Amino acid sequence: MQYRTDLAVESREQSAGLSGVVSREIKHGDLEEVHVVIETAEAARALEKDQGTYITLTHPFLSHACAKERLEMAQALSSAVRELLPPFGDVLVVGLGNRHMTADALGSRVLEDLLITRHLKDMTDEALRGRLRGVCAAAPGVLGITGMETAEVVKGIAQRVQPAAIIAIDALAARDSSRICTTIQITDTGIRPGSGVGNHRAGLNKDALGIPVIAVGVPMVVYASVIARDALSLLLADMGMEEEAHAQAMDSLIGKISCQGLGELVVTPREVDELVGKVARIIADGLNMALQPRLSEEEIQYLSHDGV
Amino acid sequence: MQYRTDLAVESREQSAGLSGVVSREIKHGDLEEVHVVIETAEAARALEKDQGTYITLTHPFLSHACAKERLEMAQALSSAVRELLPPFGDVLVVGLGNRHMTADALGSRVLEDLLITRHLKDMTDEALRGRLRGVCAAAPGVLGITGMETAEVVKGIAQRVQPAAIIAIDALAARDSSRICTTIQITDTGIRPGSGVGNHRAGLNKDALGIPVIAVGVPMVVYASVIARDALSLLLADMGMEEEAHAQAMDSLIGKISCQGLGELVVTPREVDELVGKVARIIADGLNMALQPRLSEEEIQYLSHDGV
Amino acid sequence: MQYRTDLAVESREQSAGLSGVVSREIKHGDLEEVHVVIETAEAARALEKDQGTYITLTHPFLSHACAKERLEMAQALSSAVRELLPPFGDVLVVGLGNRHMTADALGSRVLEDLLITRHLKDMTDEALRGRLRGVCAAAPGVLGITGMETAEVVKGIAQRVQPAAIIAIDALAARDSSRICTTIQITDTGIRPGSGVGNHRAGLNKDALGIPVIAVGVPMVVYASVIARDALSLLLADMGMEEEAHAQAMDSLIGKISCQGLGELVVTPREVDELVGKVARIIADGLNMALQPRLSEEEIQYLSHDGV
Amino acid sequence: MQYRTDLAVESREQSAGLSGVVSREIKHGDLEEVHVVIETAEAARALEKDQGTYITLTHPFLSHACAKERLEMAQALSSAVRELLPPFGDVLVVGLGNRHMTADALGSRVLEDLLITRHLKDMTDEALRGRLRGVCAAAPGVLGITGMETAEVVKGIAQRVQPAAIIAIDALAARDSSRICTTIQITDTGIRPGSGVGNHRAGLNKDALGIPVIAVGVPMVVYASVIARDALSLLLADMGMEEEAHAQAMDSLIGKISCQGLGELVVTPREVDELVGKVARIIADGLNMALQPRLSEEEIQYLSHDGV
Repeated sequence: MQYRTDLAVESREQSAGLSGVVSREIKHGDLEEVHVVIETAEAARALEKDQGTYITLTHPFLSHACAKERLEMAQALSSAVRELLPPFGDVLVVGLGNRHMTADALGSRVLEDLLITRHLKDMTDEALRGRLRGVCAAAPGVLGITGMETAEVVKGIAQRVQPAAIIAIDALAARDSSRICTTIQITDTGIRPGSGVGNHRAGLNKDALGIPVIAVGVPMVVYASVIARDALSLLLADMGMEEEAHAQAMDSLIGKISCQGLGELVVTPREVDELVGKVARIIADGLNMALQPRLSEEEIQYLSHDGV
Repeated sequence: MQYRTDLAVESREQSAGLSGVVSREIKHGDLEEVHVVIETAEAARALEKDQGTYITLTHPFLSHACAKERLEMAQALSSAVRELLPPFGDVLVVGLGNRHMTADALGSRVLEDLLITRHLKDMTDEALRGRLRGVCAAAPGVLGITGMETAEVVKGIAQRVQPAAIIAIDALAARDSSRICTTIQITDTGIRPGSGVGNHRAGLNKDALGIPVIAVGVPMVVYASVIARDALSLLLADMGMEEEAHAQAMDSLIGKISCQGLGELVVTPREVDELVGKVARIIADGLNMALQPRLSEEEIQYLSHDGV
Repeated sequence: MQYRTDLAVESREQSAGLSGVVSREIKHGDLEEVHVVIETAEAARALEKDQGTYITLTHPFLSHACAKERLEMAQALSSAVRELLPPFGDVLVVGLGNRHMTADALGSRVLEDLLITRHLKDMTDEALRGRLRGVCAAAPGVLGITGMETAEVVKGIAQRVQPAAIIAIDALAARDSSRICTTIQITDTGIRPGSGVGNHRAGLNKDALGIPVIAVGVPMVVYASVIARDALSLLLADMGMEEEAHAQAMDSLIGKISCQGLGELVVTPREVDELVGKVARIIADGLNMALQPRLSEEEIQYLSHDGV
Repeated sequence: MQYRTDLAVESREQSAGLSGVVSREIKHGDLEEVHVVIETAEAARALEKDQGTYITLTHPFLSHACAKERLEMAQALSSAVRELLPPFGDVLVVGLGNRHMTADALGSRVLEDLLITRHLKDMTDEALRGRLRGVCAAAPGVLGITGMETAEVVKGIAQRVQPAAIIAIDALAARDSSRICTTIQITDTGIRPGSGVGNHRAGLNKDALGIPVIAVGVPMVVYASVIARDALSLLLADMGMEEEAHAQAMDSLIGKISCQGLGELVVTPREVDELVGKVARIIADGLNMALQPRLSEEEIQYLSHDGV
């Protein structure tokens, strides 16, 4: 595993036939859904992922999808989240990442369209009140800007608010550039240390927080060094080079690339600012459906975008 | 007290001669410094302010001040904060208000230029390390956007981080429009419930949090109903009307104004967006000086604006 | 006429019975539509407005309207614009004002959701091509930021692009605060010098540009001095003061208010940032319908928000 | 020339020994200045650049430079611009690119800190007036957002304003990722069609506009396909592959890479949002010095950041 990827579905591609990993795929038109369950500690170690369930939704043209396709994606996301989320109790949605850095701003962008209800339970009319699930939200910021570990901040807030579950939204790194802004990963394993565009130092998961953590992530970047590696693999395969020589050539190159500072560079679409906004909206719509199953689509619209 | 003002200095103007209130003024050129100490519970009730010290810095042309004048204001702010702040221990700076609403965005704007150091204590070179005071920062957002009381969020974070003190930055309402963006109030009484442009529901102070809270605020708005009242007062005085008739005319008017919905409207300079940025920078500079007395101005500059 | 208002409908209120002014009102539920036609030069002088047609759409709860009501407003706007716009030829939409000042940012915000098509006529598929009206857009900025008169910039662009008409979007000043973000004025008289939140120095109209100019404006502020005056009027009427004494008291007050700098202050809702976004979206939707009558609502959606 | 680069200095590296190209280098500490003059039409064709002068300023740690180093960079930029700019007459500064796309927003960011004076010549006090050079500014936007070619808009504005010269600011693509945000190119050849992050379709130069155009550009991205190529070159050289075989392997790979859509992806630092702001400030400072040689640094500061 030399490739940095936060997607279980990409780790799986590298480890076909590994025991302790069960996966299945479903296709609805262009929308592909893959469930990967890492069942054993051995498989988890081999894939450098935590044990648990990973659901990956992929639509190759998500950023150019029409309203109907975006709704389908939001509905698929809603189903996946509901599969992993406890059915009752308040939910704290956490938008991770740095809102001042476009490729890392997904988390805080999702919160902008999320329906926040925890404070409404005593305020709104009776007809609505009984049907609202309590949702609150926080964008804890990143260590360099707050001086506090994200996990510290979330833990502090969770101790006051006592939610039944946490949903954490994050921007991810992928291995394959075609996954940028086209794939959404939902997992009950929470956030792993060292993952995300912003490289979280501490994990956010049930072990650390004592509360179930559902992570929702979208790849926003590929590290430039990965692009270089992939180009090489293509070439070496093309030249019919043997696998051993292949590995040596790679190692030699990686050293050179690191010296050039490519490791710090990311590959991202030119229009990433616009794409983040579109994907954030789809995620917010999906979460609103998952979290408020007793509200109609119209009620959600009215409450989330029009104020109360 | 019918006028809504968050400034102790304006309450004082209305209550000249009240016992239990001590005040003194100092002038340095255009910069005026007023210390008001509310010493008794009776005086506190009469002024609708909490017992404690209020320092007000006013520069009538602050928004058009040159670099030298802005530096003087930052230095005066630094002195005032140091007077009220415990000398040792980590400090949590809290930017209150709603960053999506210009007149309420002061708090989160100040954080953008604040020197954050709590996470640097183990990282930076030895020469620097011993001289850094640990500072961390959070922008907790507002109830309507997070679903959580500001006080709840701050309490949760403070319990994890255990700071020696909290500094809370907030946008205020004044009575006199000439105070908008020209006055900074520093107080050791924290944030009072019902104050601020965003109307905090719960207070942030030593009683609530168990930690000293220094509040730094700048008036950003005057409520439109106050402008109407002031216009009237001018007129009635001008007409030589007797005080009793005066009061009746006022009461009659207030009812009418409320019906017109003026109560919800605020008076603010057209260029408030630009002014918030300028004042936020002065406050950040002043806080950086107050919090890092063992760093030179150059070191602060380098660390806060140039990254590490 | 001492009150600054950019709304013909408010001038009319002050000048009931003036000859040369024809007006009619239509009500559809909460949505009120008023047509004012200033037919003579004398009436124009008396009202300090240009000769021409002014259509005012008002919905008292526009900022809290549901999706259906917003659609009705957009449709009413579309009808009004189509009534005044030449039926064929490219249209240049100009977003006036200063995008860095919230209350003056309406123009540039509308452009963000406008369907821009002039450059698509040679690109898109045949099915679409023949049905597109060419629309281009510019946000010329304000004198203090560009160093150029808005009218100069628009004239230069119009001479290259040769549109059949110009639509100019602007933030207005009203006299009555209840009109803020609830009223849209559409007029074929263009933009008058001295009008708008940003106070345009030169006019934008057919005389100046040689091309018909349809202006679409929404009140965003009331000058604070107007609020003070209105409070006074209420009071004086209440006190039964005679009209002559009334006028004198007013004049005396105006002097005092000006000295206090109220003239520069504006009254605006606290949440103006959010309201601008909502109203801008309604205007963009209405203009898209008016400008692209041969596209379905779905096609407009797809083209304007999803790129091509 | 298969590598896309907008930097003459990188083209030169590939074409060592080409006749018709004169270059010289100067080093001041970490700041390197390279002048490349393309003297003949043949050399221009070979390098795919226009005939003229290209000055490249490079500071390898520009984004982490201290205040003193940034000032030196601004001064070097000022000298370079003055070398190419006509000494008298108004100047129109054009911020190219798309302000909604971070990597392409350099142009509009520079305008935010530029001293705009054309409209002040009749307003300000006499002491200042005679010493101001008239500067105006426009951000024409991009074709997809305005429906108009950038060159069309600039031409229209220039015909009204009649400046003595145009300065055009743009974000560039480089071949070497270490140039991102560390290099500034100044040239009297204007903007070439097909160049820039946003790929200008038409050129902006003296031929097209009838006015000298000085272009100031900074690399913000490297195309991902270039990174892949560079990784390959390193590897093939390492393997001792002969040059001919080398070229074949490359061609085979390029086909594959294009199919994967890498061509549309860009490589950029994760923190590009922050870097754009820093570089924009240096450019604005340098231009202010170049354009206002009769103002002191203090006067420039006061006028550009504090309003008038």
